[in-house]
Amino acid sequence: MTATDARPTHFFAQLGLRDVAVEGVDLAMELDNKPDRTNARGALQGGLIATLIDIVAGRLAVRGLPSAESVATSDLTIHYLAPVVEGPARAQAKVLRRGKRSVVLQVEVYDVGADRLAAVSTIAFAVLRPRS
Amino acid sequence: MTATDARPTHFFAQLGLRDVAVEGVDLAMELDNKPDRTNARGALQGGLIATLIDIVAGRLAVRGLPSAESVATSDLTIHYLAPVVEGPARAQAKVLRRGKRSVVLQVEVYDVGADRLAAVSTIAFAVLRPRS
Amino acid sequence: MTATDARPTHFFAQLGLRDVAVEGVDLAMELDNKPDRTNARGALQGGLIATLIDIVAGRLAVRGLPSAESVATSDLTIHYLAPVVEGPARAQAKVLRRGKRSVVLQVEVYDVGADRLAAVSTIAFAVLRPRS
Amino acid sequence: MTATDARPTHFFAQLGLRDVAVEGVDLAMELDNKPDRTNARGALQGGLIATLIDIVAGRLAVRGLPSAESVATSDLTIHYLAPVVEGPARAQAKVLRRGKRSVVLQVEVYDVGADRLAAVSTIAFAVLRPRS
Repeated sequence: MTATDARPTHFFAQLGLRDVAVEGVDLAMELDNKPDRTNARGALQGGLIATLIDIVAGRLAVRGLPSAESVATSDLTIHYLAPVVEGPARAQAKVLRRGKRSVVLQVEVYDVGADRLAAVSTIAFAVLRPRS
Repeated sequence: MTATDARPTHFFAQLGLRDVAVEGVDLAMELDNKPDRTNARGALQGGLIATLIDIVAGRLAVRGLPSAESVATSDLTIHYLAPVVEGPARAQAKVLRRGKRSVVLQVEVYDVGADRLAAVSTIAFAVLRPRS
Repeated sequence: MTATDARPTHFFAQLGLRDVAVEGVDLAMELDNKPDRTNARGALQGGLIATLIDIVAGRLAVRGLPSAESVATSDLTIHYLAPVVEGPARAQAKVLRRGKRSVVLQVEVYDVGADRLAAVSTIAFAVLRPRS
Repeated sequence: MTATDARPTHFFAQLGLRDVAVEGVDLAMELDNKPDRTNARGALQGGLIATLIDIVAGRLAVRGLPSAESVATSDLTIHYLAPVVEGPARAQAKVLRRGKRSVVLQVEVYDVGADRLAAVSTIAFAVLRPRS
C-alpha cells in the first residue's frame, strides 16, 4: 500500500501507448496488437484505434495553447481501410487548421508490421477557455 | 484456477458494459463514468464513447446475419455534443440500412444522470463472407 | 434589359428548392428529381443532395440568432443509403445542439416518391459574430 | 435549333468545371468563384464544394474499373477549414484504398488565389456491378 494506490489506475495506462519519433511528423504514438485487445479475427478493436487517434490528436491540439486553455473533442471521423493484424498501430497526427476556437487535425494510422495504411481520420477539438 | 484463466482477460471486459432494455430501441448498452476512465474535467474519454458505439452497433449489425458471416467497421463518425459527466453513458443503436454488403446504423449516446444527449454517431460495417 | 438583369442569377435559384410543412419537423425543403440534375442511372447527384442539406440546415441554424450573427459550415457528413430516383428529395432538419459558438444539426433526406430514407447527415456550423 | 437542344442542359455543365494538371496528383479539377455561386460573404457555397469533391473523386474512383462497373457515393465527410474567397477552388483527389466492393479517397480543396487549404474530405464509393 502506497500513496499512489489510493489513486485509481487509469484505464488507458494499461494500453502501453508510447511516443515514437517519425521523420516529418509532429506527433506519433504506437499501440501494440495484443490478444487482450483484438477481435475474433485477431485485429485491433476499432474502438481502441479511435482511442489512439483521440489521444494523439488531443495532445497535439493543446500544444502551443496558453496553459490555462484545454480542448474537448467536438467531432471525429474515421475510415478504416485495413485491419491492424500485425501491429503495432502507429498514429501520426498533423494540424490542418488552428483557430482561436477550434483545432482540426488529420491522423493516419499504420499497421507497422504489415507496412500499410490502416485508417485515416479527421478530428476537431473545441478550445476551452477558463472562465474569468 | 480453471482452463479459462489461461486466456488473457480482454481489455473491454473490465469496462463493465451492460445491456439495458429501452422502450422502442433495438439495442442499448451502458458504460459507467468512473475515475479510471475520465479526463481531467471528469468527463468520460471520447475514445471510450467511440468504443461503446462501435460495440453496440457491431452487435446489432450482426443480428440476423447467417452465422458464417461477420462484420468489420468501415467508417465511424461521432459528433460530441456534451460531456458525459454524471453517467452512465447509454448508447442506443438503430439500423438505418441493411444491405448484402454493408450495414449502416445510427447511435445516440445519452448521459443518463444528466438526462441529456451527449453524442450522435453514424457507423457503417462491411459484411464479411466466409471464403468458399 | 431591366435593373435586375444586372444582378447575376444565382445558381441555386434554378434548382427550384421549396419549403414544405412536415408535422413535427422544424424545417423541411424539397428538390425535384429532373433530367438536368441526375446521373447516368437517373438518380439525383450526390453533390446536389449535399447542397440541399447545407441550405436547409444553414437556414435552421441561423434562426433565433441575433440578426448581426451568421453561420458558416464547419463540417458535413453524409451517408447515402439509397438513390433518389423518384423524387422529390425532401430534407428534414433538426437541431441537436445549439451553443454560443456552434450549432450541430441532423438532416434526414427522403425520396418522397419512393417513400424511403435516402440519406442521413450530421452538419455543424460555426457562429460568426460581427467584429466590434 | 439543333438536335442537341432537345437534350436538357445538365446543371453541372454550367459550373465550368475543368481538369488541371498538378504535379504528383492523380486528378485535379477547378471551379471558379463567381457571384452566381457565392454566399453573402462572397465565399463559394459549401454545397458546391461538396459537388466538386463528389465529381472529382467519382471520376478517379471509376478509373481502372471494368467498363461495365460504375460507382455510387456511399459516404462523404468534409471539414471546411477556410472560405474560398479568391478562387478558383481546386480539388485534388487520391485513392486511399481500392477494394473489390468499395473505393475510399481523400480530397483536398485549395483556394488557389488565396494559396491556402480550404477543405479536406474523405469519400467512399460502392462499386456497382452489372446484374448478370
